[in-house]
Amino acid sequence: MDNLYADRMSKIPRSFVREILKVADEPDIISFAGGLPNPDTFPQKEFAESTSFILENSGAEALQYSTTEGYEPLRSLVSERYAKNGLSVDPENILITNGSQQGLDLVAKVFLNHEDTVLVEKPTYLAALQAFGLFEPKFKSIPLLNDGVDMDVLRSMVENDDPKLFYSIPNFQNPTGISYSLEKRKLIGELVNQNETVLVEDNPYGEIRFMGENLPPIKRFTNNSILLGSFSKVVAPGIRLGWIVAEDETMHHLVTAKQASDLHSNFFSQMIVHHYLTKYDVEDHLTMIREMYKNQRDFMLEMIKRYFPEGVKYTEPEGGMFLWVTLPEDMDAMELFERTMEDDVAFVPGEAFYSEDSQKNTLRLNFSNSNNTKIEEGIKKMGKAIKELQCN
Amino acid sequence: MDNLYADRMSKIPRSFVREILKVADEPDIISFAGGLPNPDTFPQKEFAESTSFILENSGAEALQYSTTEGYEPLRSLVSERYAKNGLSVDPENILITNGSQQGLDLVAKVFLNHEDTVLVEKPTYLAALQAFGLFEPKFKSIPLLNDGVDMDVLRSMVENDDPKLFYSIPNFQNPTGISYSLEKRKLIGELVNQNETVLVEDNPYGEIRFMGENLPPIKRFTNNSILLGSFSKVVAPGIRLGWIVAEDETMHHLVTAKQASDLHSNFFSQMIVHHYLTKYDVEDHLTMIREMYKNQRDFMLEMIKRYFPEGVKYTEPEGGMFLWVTLPEDMDAMELFERTMEDDVAFVPGEAFYSEDSQKNTLRLNFSNSNNTKIEEGIKKMGKAIKELQCN
Repeated sequence: MDNLYADRMSKIPRSFVREILKVADEPDIISFAGGLPNPDTFPQKEFAESTSFILENSGAEALQYSTTEGYEPLRSLVSERYAKNGLSVDPENILITNGSQQGLDLVAKVFLNHEDTVLVEKPTYLAALQAFGLFEPKFKSIPLLNDGVDMDVLRSMVENDDPKLFYSIPNFQNPTGISYSLEKRKLIGELVNQNETVLVEDNPYGEIRFMGENLPPIKRFTNNSILLGSFSKVVAPGIRLGWIVAEDETMHHLVTAKQASDLHSNFFSQMIVHHYLTKYDVEDHLTMIREMYKNQRDFMLEMIKRYFPEGVKYTEPEGGMFLWVTLPEDMDAMELFERTMEDDVAFVPGEAFYSEDSQKNTLRLNFSNSNNTKIEEGIKKMGKAIKELQCN
Repeated sequence: MDNLYADRMSKIPRSFVREILKVADEPDIISFAGGLPNPDTFPQKEFAESTSFILENSGAEALQYSTTEGYEPLRSLVSERYAKNGLSVDPENILITNGSQQGLDLVAKVFLNHEDTVLVEKPTYLAALQAFGLFEPKFKSIPLLNDGVDMDVLRSMVENDDPKLFYSIPNFQNPTGISYSLEKRKLIGELVNQNETVLVEDNPYGEIRFMGENLPPIKRFTNNSILLGSFSKVVAPGIRLGWIVAEDETMHHLVTAKQASDLHSNFFSQMIVHHYLTKYDVEDHLTMIREMYKNQRDFMLEMIKRYFPEGVKYTEPEGGMFLWVTLPEDMDAMELFERTMEDDVAFVPGEAFYSEDSQKNTLRLNFSNSNNTKIEEGIKKMGKAIKELQCN
C-alpha cells in the first residue's frame, strides 16, 4: 500500500534528534543532546495555584471549546510585553499556537506552494526543515557567520532566486547559539522591505539573554515579516503554547489554517498561563533562569577549555541553551557520538541541522538541562574520546 | 502581496460555523448553532483534584517536553477501553492528537497528494472539508440515507474513481445525527478490504449513545482503516485531546507528520486526563451525560412536533449532540437564519455541510448545550419564522 501515501512523506526524515532523545533519556546517560529547559526552573507551585484559581472561577470556560485566535487576555499580555521592549503589536495580530513549532506548520500552509524556495540558515533548526519540508519547498541555505548570516549570499539569493520565505533565528540560534548583530538586523529589515521575500523570525530564546546588550527583533525594521514566540522557555514546554505575530491579511489566512488544523489551542492551559504571568513576577522568574543557564554555560566553557584538545572550536553564546562545537576538519561527529555513547554521554551530531552540504565535524551541546557534576564528567569523557579519535 | 500566499488558501472558506458561533456566543442569543458539549457535564472538581495530584507528584514531567506519540499510560487506557468493547488495539497503534481535528490534518498530510479523490458523506462535518481541503483533493460526496451512506454509490465510486480516502462518521453523524446499521458497517469493512481506499472512521460521539443498541466500529471489520477518537465529548473539549488508531506503517508516518506539526500534544493535560479517567468512575460520568442529552433531545423533538408546521422533516438520533431538519423543498435555511437571528435564535444552515450540491432547505440543531427553557422558546420562535416564510 506504499503508493497510497502522499509524496511529501518520502521527503521527510524522522527527527534524528528525537530518536537520539529516546536513547539519551535513559537515567544513566549524561545527555547534552536534548533542547530541554531545566525542569528545576518550572514554576510548579505557582502553576498549581493558578490552575486551582482558574478551575474554581472559570472552569466551565476553561474546559469548553473556544475561539481559534486564542484567549484574548493572553494575546493582550503578549502585546504588552512587546510594548515594554519597544515593539508595537496589536493583540489582533497575535495568534496563539501549540508551541512555536505549530507556527512553522501554519506559516508553511499559508505560504508554500510545491517547489517554492525557502531560505534557511546553515546550520538551522532541524524541526523547521521538517515543518516546512512537509510542503515540499526547495531549501537554500546561507552560511551563518559569528554575527548572523552572510549578507552577500542572502542578498544575492533574495534578489535572484525569488524565495517566498527567509527563516531566521536571530537570538542564540538553535543549534549554534549565534546572535545577529544590530547592523545585520537593520540590513535584513531593509532587504525584505525592498523585496517580496517574507522574513520568518523565530524567537524562542530571546528572553534568555544572560549577558551582552538586548537587541531588538528584526521586526522592528520591517513589516514584511512574521514573528514567532514561545512560552516553552519562559514558563514550560509541556503545555505547548506559543504565538505568531503577523499583519492583518496574513493573520486572516493563518487563522483559517489554524481552524482547519485543530480548531484552537488548549484553552485550559492558555488561561492558566495568563493567570500565572499576571499574578506572579515573571521578571524574577526570568532572572532566576538566566542566572542558572549562565552559570552552566560558563562552567561548560571552562570544562571545554580544560578537557577538549587544541583545534576544537566552539561558540560562546550570550544566551539561550546551546553551544556549537567544530571539531578538527577530518573528524566525524557521528563517529564521536558512537564512541561517547559507549561511555553514556550523548550530544547531537551537527549533520542533523543542515538542509544541504552537512558539515560532519560539528556538534551541538545543550547546557540548560544539566548540572556542574554532569557537565564536568560528560565534557571530560568527550574530551578523552576526541583525543582518541585524533590518534586513530 | 496576494501572489505570495499558497494556492491552497484560496480554496478554503473560513468556517461559516465558527463565524456564526461568534455571533451566537452573545449572552442574549438562544443558540442551537454550536457543536458544544454542555458545560454542566464538565468534571471541574475532579479535574482540579487530578491537576493538583499531577503537579504535586509529577510536575516536572508534566511540564517538560515529551514524546510525539503521547503519554504511554493514556494510550494504554484508550487501548483498554477499546478492549472492553471488543476491539483489540495495541497502545503502539495509538497516537495522541490535539483533538480529533488534528487527526484529520495528520491523515491528510500522510495520504493526500494534490487532486487525490476523497469520498465524504453528503452532508458531512464541515471542518473535515477544511482540514482535507488544505491539501487540495477532489471531494466526491455520497448521499447519506437513514442507515448510512448509499452503498451502491459508495461501491461504484470506490471501484471506479480510485479514491484515496473515504471519510465517515458512523455514529450520530455531524451534522445529521444519523447512525450506520450493523449491516452497512460490515459491507463497508468488506468493501475497503477488497480495495485500496482507506476508511477514515471518525467517532467523536460513539460513547454518547443514549438509546438503541451499541454497534461496533467499522474497524472491527477491516484493517484498511484509520479510527479517530476524542476526549472532547467524554471529558471536555477545551483541553484539545483526541487520538488516532492506525496500523504500524501508517502510524510511523503519522508520528513523523505530528513531530513536524507541533512536536507533541499538551503533556500536562494528557497526564491530568489519564489521572481523572483512572481515579474516577467514567461510566457514571457518561451515564450522567447520556441522561442529560437524551432528555434534551426528547424535549427538542417534542417541541418540534408542537411548533414546527407540517412538511418539516427531522432525524431522531439515538445519541450524539445534533439533529437535522429538512424544511419544505423551496425554503432557504439561510433566509430562515436571518429571520430567526432578528429574534435572537441561532442554528447552522445546512449548506455549510456540503462539499457540492448544497441542499439549501436543511439545517442543524444542537441539543446538548441547551436547556428546556431555551429549547421551548427557541423552537417556538423558529416554528413561527418557518410558518411566516411559508406564507411569503
